[in-house]
Amino acid sequence: MLGLYSLDMEKGLLYETIVTTKNPDGTPNAAPIGVICKADDEIVFYLHKGSKTFDNVQHEKNFHVNILNDPMVFVESTIGNLEIAEFQADDGGFFIKSAEAFFRAEVTHEKLVQHKDHLGTSITNVIRARVRDVVKNQEHVQPLNRAIYGIIEALVYLSRIDIVSEDEKKAYLDQISEISRVVNKVGSEDHKQAMKKILESLE
Amino acid sequence: MLGLYSLDMEKGLLYETIVTTKNPDGTPNAAPIGVICKADDEIVFYLHKGSKTFDNVQHEKNFHVNILNDPMVFVESTIGNLEIAEFQADDGGFFIKSAEAFFRAEVTHEKLVQHKDHLGTSITNVIRARVRDVVKNQEHVQPLNRAIYGIIEALVYLSRIDIVSEDEKKAYLDQISEISRVVNKVGSEDHKQAMKKILESLE
Repeated sequence: MLGLYSLDMEKGLLYETIVTTKNPDGTPNAAPIGVICKADDEIVFYLHKGSKTFDNVQHEKNFHVNILNDPMVFVESTIGNLEIAEFQADDGGFFIKSAEAFFRAEVTHEKLVQHKDHLGTSITNVIRARVRDVVKNQEHVQPLNRAIYGIIEALVYLSRIDIVSEDEKKAYLDQISEISRVVNKVGSEDHKQAMKKILESLE
Repeated sequence: MLGLYSLDMEKGLLYETIVTTKNPDGTPNAAPIGVICKADDEIVFYLHKGSKTFDNVQHEKNFHVNILNDPMVFVESTIGNLEIAEFQADDGGFFIKSAEAFFRAEVTHEKLVQHKDHLGTSITNVIRARVRDVVKNQEHVQPLNRAIYGIIEALVYLSRIDIVSEDEKKAYLDQISEISRVVNKVGSEDHKQAMKKILESLE
């Protein structure tokens, strides 16, 4: 059976995907979600209370993960929802027809975590799920990982840091710090080493 | 003969590459450069005066473009240079051995442009070059284009914009505006349409 590694995913990396779920009324829902590849047949991801995906996954324990890089699908599934014609029913759920690849997954473990920050208190469900039925619609699939783009962006800031004003320098350092947080969340050991080297060059 | 489209490049998009050139003393130089695919056999890019790549391309009229996504190669070619062992001599220049693909290119047109901003006056050489000798070291090459990541980042800001403070909201809008600038510079018509939809949803 095909697993995540057949989709060019690597263990430990977080990929930008579209998760499709079934609403209580039987209609499909789509939302952009970052999904961590834990093993060839296992993923972990975080859902925030207040979203349809949070409710649907908690209720159905079953969902689909779609790998694609069509920008309009990301936009439409964030602002409102995709057209119904873009979904295809499958095994108690839905996938997106135009996806490069997709797989169904079943929840194996859930953990509700309360999170407090300056915006207030929020509740997150940490989901662990087993990967079932991986389907590839093209031979070579490109799952989206943000780490290399973070590195490149940090290098753009780094290369300008000695020619800008003190205020801009501070803003650039803040940006690099935020990029470092993201790279360490989504990237591989290689990405983390590269980010570390960027930070060291600033010391 | 293989062209840029065989590397999965699309006309009009800007790709993050490493350009390798020959220094006056015959040693190799590497630098991260954004390269626009103009046609299957033509690229355009911008070089800033003060860089070795600017001098070397102006002198040699010949250089190599390397397609790869190893984060450490991007970091090392920005901070200092790559180890000499990472280069391979080729046709009057050098390529990077570990590249997914590379091609040699010959300058067909140069235009020096003076640019003034709050940091002072800088000189840019707008280079047009003919693509020669495309070499693929693996069957499926993934050239780096930042547009989809910009879209995803803008969507993260967008989805939080109603729950943050006024100050944060202003900072998010500034970020989205900067992302829009980048997406319109590096992306396809699809990316630009998606970005437009994000901006419209903010009105």
